[in-house]
Amino acid sequence: MDELRFAAVGLNHNHIYGQVNCLIRAGARLVGFHEKDDTLAAEFTGVYKDAPRIAALEEILEDRSIGLIVSAAVSAERAELAIRAMQHGKDVLVDKPGMTSLDQLTKVRRVQAETGRIFSILYSEHFESPATVKAGELVAAGAIGEVVHIVGLGPHRLRRETRPDWFFRREEYGGILTDIASHQCEQFLFFTGASDATILSANVDNLSVPDKPELQDTGNIHLSTGRATGMIHVNWLTPDGMPTWGDGRLFIVGTTGTIEVRKTVDLAGREGGNHLFLADRNGVQHIDCSAVDLPFGRQFLADIRDRTETAMPRERCFKAMELALSAQALAEQNREKN
Amino acid sequence: MDELRFAAVGLNHNHIYGQVNCLIRAGARLVGFHEKDDTLAAEFTGVYKDAPRIAALEEILEDRSIGLIVSAAVSAERAELAIRAMQHGKDVLVDKPGMTSLDQLTKVRRVQAETGRIFSILYSEHFESPATVKAGELVAAGAIGEVVHIVGLGPHRLRRETRPDWFFRREEYGGILTDIASHQCEQFLFFTGASDATILSANVDNLSVPDKPELQDTGNIHLSTGRATGMIHVNWLTPDGMPTWGDGRLFIVGTTGTIEVRKTVDLAGREGGNHLFLADRNGVQHIDCSAVDLPFGRQFLADIRDRTETAMPRERCFKAMELALSAQALAEQNREKN
Repeated sequence: MDELRFAAVGLNHNHIYGQVNCLIRAGARLVGFHEKDDTLAAEFTGVYKDAPRIAALEEILEDRSIGLIVSAAVSAERAELAIRAMQHGKDVLVDKPGMTSLDQLTKVRRVQAETGRIFSILYSEHFESPATVKAGELVAAGAIGEVVHIVGLGPHRLRRETRPDWFFRREEYGGILTDIASHQCEQFLFFTGASDATILSANVDNLSVPDKPELQDTGNIHLSTGRATGMIHVNWLTPDGMPTWGDGRLFIVGTTGTIEVRKTVDLAGREGGNHLFLADRNGVQHIDCSAVDLPFGRQFLADIRDRTETAMPRERCFKAMELALSAQALAEQNREKN
Repeated sequence: MDELRFAAVGLNHNHIYGQVNCLIRAGARLVGFHEKDDTLAAEFTGVYKDAPRIAALEEILEDRSIGLIVSAAVSAERAELAIRAMQHGKDVLVDKPGMTSLDQLTKVRRVQAETGRIFSILYSEHFESPATVKAGELVAAGAIGEVVHIVGLGPHRLRRETRPDWFFRREEYGGILTDIASHQCEQFLFFTGASDATILSANVDNLSVPDKPELQDTGNIHLSTGRATGMIHVNWLTPDGMPTWGDGRLFIVGTTGTIEVRKTVDLAGREGGNHLFLADRNGVQHIDCSAVDLPFGRQFLADIRDRTETAMPRERCFKAMELALSAQALAEQNREKN
């Protein structure tokens, strides 16, 4: 297989390093990057010394040897960048959220259909989380019967002094459900196997950072496939003393068993992250998932080569954002009423 | 203080043993019981050998030496019994749910106000749970700042072969949110300190027991005080291999810390139940709560003596049922629409 050559465009969120590393591990080659901000560019160059900074985005877009653009630009700018890239014949892998409005989503969907390019989002709390990947394998193997309910808890550390201004501007980051809960929306669809869901209710609020009124530090979604249900809680309230950026949890309730995933930490317990607990008809077991293979990068490069959608079906990628964006809109309507 | 003499009326749920033991531990005296069913009566007599079975309920109601009636009658029958008891000058402590309809709640509230008697519910997943009591102490002491969000997970084992017929009849047990989630509604009010809340959404379903169509094996509530929010999930899906009837969890998210309570089991981890995990500005600690004092019984007897409401404010007792009953009604409306 020919080596895939890719470029990074927009380094505004440090998730870009996870995206680039995922692709390099899978065998792709980073051939350059574009970033207006000198500080962000210098940091990136310090890590990827062989990847030249390219001043003009057009140079990357016009370079037919580059097959893929990866981006962690300001959230609100990702859709337009992805559209331009697809219109230039390139596949796209962006950080979550893939876009910040339902209008942007409609446009990305349309251009994707018109161009036949791959548009994907690296939902890292699934694809970069070995214990979550393992949970997927167990559920697919029938380990807990039919999935009935999902609880997704996504606390994150604010680290406000390290955040750029756009992080605090609603129009640029998109709201907390769009931004963070898109992870859980994707996992909800993945674990239930559903192609769609209904938002039963959603709320957002800012309870702890009054001087940044556009920040939302807490948000919730209750959703249903008509059969399975889900509850999502996200926040920017990880306590200072927590030994991780966020004690992300996932409870998957099935008809014959339950799974709990402790993604990053086992509180006051075992070392490290990636803990999975399976309770089924036979008993309870702890599964250390730290060595579980992460197939996303490998599958994604094969998808680019074979024009398949194995790493994540296209519709799930889009639908997860549609659910998060719809919940965000509903939550903000509810908030205005109060 | 004079010894409080109490009687048990209606032994249909085995929670009656927890209620009676709670009061005996606190110094009250069980002076008799009334139960129509011979099997239930014999079992009770086997445990409380000195408490005579009294054939006529009226005899208990008319006995002015009895100050308190405790009951775990069929859920739908508790309200009427409580009303009769209060009208006979007696205080009442029932198992949850205290009643099974909003109409019953209205009547109980009215008679309570008319008679000035104490009507209380032993929400055992709070008052009989040392780790939950400890969480209350920590929150009250400001250990996690302002409470922002509560996640209450209440899985229960079905044990269907042991359940009486009424357990499977909607009109008699009241629906899963009324029955089980009333626990979490009470805890939501307790931990947020709120006097009221709004049900944002609720759902119930039966996904695993098709031959018992009136059973609901899963249910959820999303609720809000206008400031703090809560998510409640309850089910009858505890897997056979789980070493407890239900891995009840409580996550309390505050502005400066979080608490997780593992009420009955630490999966594949520490022995026993009553585990509390506190993450705050300084770090993470595991607190073994197995020796934490349970004050409910003692406080409740003092309330009876002093006509106070220390064990649980009356309005919280009622409001928790109102929330659970309202969520149940909303969930069943939603289900009929589908």
